[in-house]
Amino acid sequence: MNTDADFLRAAIALARRHMEAGHGGPFGAVIVLEGEIVAEGWNQVTSTLDPTAHAEIVAIRQAASTLRRFSLSGGTLYTSCEPCPMCLAAAYWARLDCIVYAATRADAAEIGFDDAKLYAELALPPELRQMPMHQALRDEARAVFHAWARKDDRMAY
Amino acid sequence: MNTDADFLRAAIALARRHMEAGHGGPFGAVIVLEGEIVAEGWNQVTSTLDPTAHAEIVAIRQAASTLRRFSLSGGTLYTSCEPCPMCLAAAYWARLDCIVYAATRADAAEIGFDDAKLYAELALPPELRQMPMHQALRDEARAVFHAWARKDDRMAY
Repeated sequence: MNTDADFLRAAIALARRHMEAGHGGPFGAVIVLEGEIVAEGWNQVTSTLDPTAHAEIVAIRQAASTLRRFSLSGGTLYTSCEPCPMCLAAAYWARLDCIVYAATRADAAEIGFDDAKLYAELALPPELRQMPMHQALRDEARAVFHAWARKDDRMAY
Repeated sequence: MNTDADFLRAAIALARRHMEAGHGGPFGAVIVLEGEIVAEGWNQVTSTLDPTAHAEIVAIRQAASTLRRFSLSGGTLYTSCEPCPMCLAAAYWARLDCIVYAATRADAAEIGFDDAKLYAELALPPELRQMPMHQALRDEARAVFHAWARKDDRMAY
């Protein structure tokens, strides 16, 4: 078990198993480092009452916890569906090297998930989005940013 | 304490306090429902070794846990900085009503955070992104989607 197809099938198998068990939506993911699966994830939004518990987020958090580091550089995310914007951005923050996926955002839309709509929303300027966004107190927040930038022991990530 | 400025200052105060304590980047967030703060979050990527532990994600997970529901409909997210794409998409998935923020993605870029670059990446088609993305086995994953769509007891979210 060490080809892209093997790891992607492992992600799809997680999607099926946990969907059938009623844990959440039909999505699964694994993270692979140096040819080994280091973490598994599956959607558990409805079973754990966590709107961020998508398969990829669960797998990323699990991998970081297992490896005891916040960078997963060198790793590949295999996921049964093209990641939504939340999960794709999480993959960037986790410094993963690569993503391999099976179904697309359009396939997800067909069964009622908002991934495609979310990509369109995020590409809009804030004032044109359906989610109302207001800005205030910019200088007060920037003062905290500048204090951080001057902090000798800050840890970048 | 019940104006937008009050709640936004609470988020900025969390950013400052936990940045000074060395818990992570200089970001804080609160979630408000019916005029009350129901959850607080602050960046803890480096202290909890979780690349997804941005202030907003932490606050959303905490609110859902406290309220025992995966939808935060009716709630407002106050955050010391414009959310990155991960956190903005999480706000949509959590069905929050509104976002109020202080600093911008450009301010975050000034102190070394990738938010602005991430927005640009996510707006690109997968094949043009810096993150390599490959697709395979679409039909196998779609078969799981269709099994879910036929499941009588599926719970939408």
